[in-house]
Amino acid sequence: MDISVINSLTYEDFVNIFGNVVEKCPLILAAIWSHRPFKDLADIETHITEFIHSLSDSGKEGILRCHPDLAGRDLQTGALTRESQEEQSQAGMTTLDSREILDMYRLNAEYKKRFGFPFIICVRLNKKAEILRQLSERLKNDRAAERERAIEEVKKICSLRLHSIVTSDMQTKL
Amino acid sequence: MDISVINSLTYEDFVNIFGNVVEKCPLILAAIWSHRPFKDLADIETHITEFIHSLSDSGKEGILRCHPDLAGRDLQTGALTRESQEEQSQAGMTTLDSREILDMYRLNAEYKKRFGFPFIICVRLNKKAEILRQLSERLKNDRAAERERAIEEVKKICSLRLHSIVTSDMQTKL
Repeated sequence: MDISVINSLTYEDFVNIFGNVVEKCPLILAAIWSHRPFKDLADIETHITEFIHSLSDSGKEGILRCHPDLAGRDLQTGALTRESQEEQSQAGMTTLDSREILDMYRLNAEYKKRFGFPFIICVRLNKKAEILRQLSERLKNDRAAERERAIEEVKKICSLRLHSIVTSDMQTKL
Repeated sequence: MDISVINSLTYEDFVNIFGNVVEKCPLILAAIWSHRPFKDLADIETHITEFIHSLSDSGKEGILRCHPDLAGRDLQTGALTRESQEEQSQAGMTTLDSREILDMYRLNAEYKKRFGFPFIICVRLNKKAEILRQLSERLKNDRAAERERAIEEVKKICSLRLHSIVTSDMQTKL
């Protein structure tokens, strides 16, 4: 698809289509719409990244706190966004055995208590065992390092969602 | 109610309860949670204001673009957030006559074409005739002045939503 189609969208259509590439933060996409015309998808990603990095530490943590727990309550109750639901399902979060569910629950709780935001990992790029391993591992980070690490994951998730929309969903959403 | 109750909320409960005091921008409330403990409601408002003013011009416009049109499609289709639905109903936006609907539609379209964001006014503080008058009037502003004007309205809406939650809804949401 052509970037000119994206550049021709009203802000309403742009936000409807791309608003959730950063989970529950339509503000970010609504903001970068100001920077049209975009050269290409990479240019859109650059503006998103610049926006995120322009935020204070608490602003970055705000982005993280808009994310659901992995294999958490929102997954169990069907309250996830469509994007999160697909990603968590593909990563096997819906087919954990009881031991894995307990591990995940315990480690998520420990992580949130320690950092004040949820554990975020690009599940499309990691399998179940690796996700649990990283959750244990990253619990050892200090808060500043872990905030930056989590933001890097947000950017990976964002990039994959962006490309996924443009390659498959865009036609049906317009 | 006591500020200590608010200060004791997890970020999840805090965002669930207060996340929409700035329309569709849970990021902002999720960010300022970092600044607990809050002294009082005014302190929460100060942090929200500081966050908004720390944003670039495009960031502020992003906030504006997360708002629905007044008496627009989302009102007609029932797609408004609960808060917007209540506010627009109270201001008489659901009982416009056909002439008023056409005026509103035409002026909203003109406003969005001119500024690239929707017309925002704290409808709880204005009656129908005044809203239409201000919409015509503010169309004459330049973009920078109108951006700042609209952000002031966002802050008024936010303040009223915040107080409304604390005085009436909080018990039932907890």
